[in-house]
Amino acid sequence: MIKSKIDIRVRYEETDKMGVVYHAKYFTWFEVARIELLDHIGCPYRELEERGYFLPVLQCQAKYHMPAHFDDRLKVHVEISREPVARIEISYQVYRGADLLATAQTTHAFIDQGGKLIRPPKSFLERAGQYFS
Amino acid sequence: MIKSKIDIRVRYEETDKMGVVYHAKYFTWFEVARIELLDHIGCPYRELEERGYFLPVLQCQAKYHMPAHFDDRLKVHVEISREPVARIEISYQVYRGADLLATAQTTHAFIDQGGKLIRPPKSFLERAGQYFS
Amino acid sequence: MIKSKIDIRVRYEETDKMGVVYHAKYFTWFEVARIELLDHIGCPYRELEERGYFLPVLQCQAKYHMPAHFDDRLKVHVEISREPVARIEISYQVYRGADLLATAQTTHAFIDQGGKLIRPPKSFLERAGQYFS
Amino acid sequence: MIKSKIDIRVRYEETDKMGVVYHAKYFTWFEVARIELLDHIGCPYRELEERGYFLPVLQCQAKYHMPAHFDDRLKVHVEISREPVARIEISYQVYRGADLLATAQTTHAFIDQGGKLIRPPKSFLERAGQYFS
Repeated sequence: MIKSKIDIRVRYEETDKMGVVYHAKYFTWFEVARIELLDHIGCPYRELEERGYFLPVLQCQAKYHMPAHFDDRLKVHVEISREPVARIEISYQVYRGADLLATAQTTHAFIDQGGKLIRPPKSFLERAGQYFS
Repeated sequence: MIKSKIDIRVRYEETDKMGVVYHAKYFTWFEVARIELLDHIGCPYRELEERGYFLPVLQCQAKYHMPAHFDDRLKVHVEISREPVARIEISYQVYRGADLLATAQTTHAFIDQGGKLIRPPKSFLERAGQYFS
Repeated sequence: MIKSKIDIRVRYEETDKMGVVYHAKYFTWFEVARIELLDHIGCPYRELEERGYFLPVLQCQAKYHMPAHFDDRLKVHVEISREPVARIEISYQVYRGADLLATAQTTHAFIDQGGKLIRPPKSFLERAGQYFS
Repeated sequence: MIKSKIDIRVRYEETDKMGVVYHAKYFTWFEVARIELLDHIGCPYRELEERGYFLPVLQCQAKYHMPAHFDDRLKVHVEISREPVARIEISYQVYRGADLLATAQTTHAFIDQGGKLIRPPKSFLERAGQYFS
């Protein structure tokens, strides 16, 4: 299993007139958490793209249990629980203290600059693989 | 079944450095489609909120089949296929011409200003109900 | 003078917890208005980029006179009042009915893919020039 | 003079198809910097709103000197250089290392829940005033 986490402080821009964070904004936090996870295993996403590997979102889903508010300090836990082969499944949990605000999953696959599905880069598979042996 | 659709022209702001629309932006289009659907059945969302009814997103999910690009003219089809009772399930399809770019679902329930789950307003149930008799 | 205008219906996503549209969101509307203006003179921005011409924002400013609210139907007037040479100055006015909500200006120049300042494409100068003879 | 600064790591969501940060996204960073500045002088914005004081943007402007890219680590310097009375003028500088990417200003005034201009809260004037004696 690969795990990491990030700190988020809710921006005013992320709220809506209901006084809470707009549901779609969480997906940007998940992106930040994913980037951190890739840093954590030694495969910074910036470098992957520089080498021609892109990792778009193929699927995403989220459940919102409690709302997040402006200025909240949140923890976003991010985890890859199955060894990535072609598809990469990532899950997320958003906490404010002990309260679980939201859970989510995203599914990814590597594509090249032209948008064609490709095998993940060897370096990624090796580094990610170490967490599952 | 309640159905409607909207036209979307992709904004530059909605794209990312991959040259395509960022996945989370679709959820704003789905919001626009939902608002249109509520107009269509005679329950404008603005009025629901003025009467103290709020309709947050409890769950959402999306699958991305093909990317959308800047300046694309898209159709977002929106549909409620089961009569809404407490929970309201809405599905979406994003088309560019004949190409299906994405499919999605959102789940909603009415809450009051304090965030408490409440029964949908009668007017909404009646108007929505007419499409399922 | 080159003039055009667009219709905007305020999205929920564009509001913040103050209950009004977040100030930075207006700049996306101005982008939409600019794109329309370029269509209007026969130089769609999509085609400019396909030919290697990019038109970033070098400067921007806005004054907010009255807030915009969710679901408001707005008109954004857009105007180039001086013949564009190297720099292109565009101004904007946001109206809700007779009420002027905001005024703004953006300044642009053409760059190539590498980010280098370049002369505007001839076709753009000719088409824009016709409005100033 | 009141000064503070924040660290920003550029999110993928903040980029556009030009491969750089979309101009309007900087204003969200300025918001984050402003919130930090208010923390710094002991007037957290969250508390100001809880006491009925809102601080909308009345004017804003920015100049973009060099583009920011995905994953860049930036510093946003924020400063109030004149003692705030009714109007509060805040300026910003965005740096990547020694490179100045952008400069900006925003102007604010306090309003109440109803949107009426009001005098700043005493606690704010006192705390801010200490930096200008």
